[in-house]
Amino acid sequence: MPAAADWLRERLGYDCHDAALLEAALTHRSAAALNNERLEYLGDAVLSFVVAEALYRRLPRAPEGDLSRLRASLVSGETLAAVAAEQGIGDWLVLGEGELKSGGHRRKSILADALEALIGAIYLDGGMEPARAVVERLLRPRFENLPPADELKDAKTRLQETLQGRGQELPVYAVLAAFGPPHQQTFRVRCELPGRDLAAEAEGSTRRGAEQEAARLVHDELLRRECRP
Amino acid sequence: MPAAADWLRERLGYDCHDAALLEAALTHRSAAALNNERLEYLGDAVLSFVVAEALYRRLPRAPEGDLSRLRASLVSGETLAAVAAEQGIGDWLVLGEGELKSGGHRRKSILADALEALIGAIYLDGGMEPARAVVERLLRPRFENLPPADELKDAKTRLQETLQGRGQELPVYAVLAAFGPPHQQTFRVRCELPGRDLAAEAEGSTRRGAEQEAARLVHDELLRRECRP
Repeated sequence: MPAAADWLRERLGYDCHDAALLEAALTHRSAAALNNERLEYLGDAVLSFVVAEALYRRLPRAPEGDLSRLRASLVSGETLAAVAAEQGIGDWLVLGEGELKSGGHRRKSILADALEALIGAIYLDGGMEPARAVVERLLRPRFENLPPADELKDAKTRLQETLQGRGQELPVYAVLAAFGPPHQQTFRVRCELPGRDLAAEAEGSTRRGAEQEAARLVHDELLRRECRP
Repeated sequence: MPAAADWLRERLGYDCHDAALLEAALTHRSAAALNNERLEYLGDAVLSFVVAEALYRRLPRAPEGDLSRLRASLVSGETLAAVAAEQGIGDWLVLGEGELKSGGHRRKSILADALEALIGAIYLDGGMEPARAVVERLLRPRFENLPPADELKDAKTRLQETLQGRGQELPVYAVLAAFGPPHQQTFRVRCELPGRDLAAEAEGSTRRGAEQEAARLVHDELLRRECRP
């Protein structure tokens, strides 16, 4: 697979010694028994470690919670799929018939998995330092534009922190109803601030999703009331 | 803190150069602003990576799913707390007043976090190779007695795989009711095999927990029926 090796050298600056490893990293399970699933497992661990350390060193005063949230955002399937697409990894994927026909080389989960597998292959081929260099190269623009860690907080966390900052009671959540056919239920959830006239209800296909939406509504309303004269 | 440094050398074979790092690793957030939370974040990443690679190399034919389950089991809070207690880490913890009085040096989450922080400190102090050596030493008995990966599967996964292996329809789950006060609700869930006279209901403090229990009941009944003459 000389073409993929060229792409890897030119695009990511890594010269792969073991062509079979590179081929395995780019082979989806739909194409062959010798595919990239084990390399993806290993690459995920390498990637998480490298990103964890890079954030630890870049943000010497950030609390653990901020570091964890930033890391989760940088190694999310969404981010990895975007990075993989930027690098054009889809052109080099080996897919089975079905995946080929249904556009598998553009499917986010396949792209993200292949990127992790590629990182695992580079680690096995050259060790931690080349793997780290490739990860830092792949993520450099994102490391240089880290979002404020607060923005990554979910709505329940933000509501809780706002209330804690004021010494007020925490919200309580309740599932009011679950309806619809068994395998696609909808949950109706209520979020309420105890002893105050403030509550919201929301629905979602998961309990957690509905709670997040209800928390967002309560938080927005809380802030809105304060802006009133 | 010479005593803790002696313990680390004798117990885990690591000679720490930076006494301040070791002290930070053993300091719970209840005791000081300079505590082990950031080191715990870093150590968690080092530990996960080392365990992931060790399993990858020890089990060259294991599928990715088995490796992931084994890793999750080895780095779980439960396992880490047990390992930390075996090593007597509790004797060296620096805790605040409140935690001291309430037995914080025996609390599982505090022990597991301190062990991760210690691994992070060793990584910063000496690099990956000493950190890897300590992790392998800490987990050696568990690496040598890995459970069959199947045993680590949860009940919903086992039920699904049994049915898939027979080409039968997958179970459907439904939340029948949620009751109790908002912040401590109980969920009643039903697991049913479509088109067959086999279902079970279970309750739990989480939807997922109740589903697991219902799945276990259905799976047991499925196997029991087959044993009947």
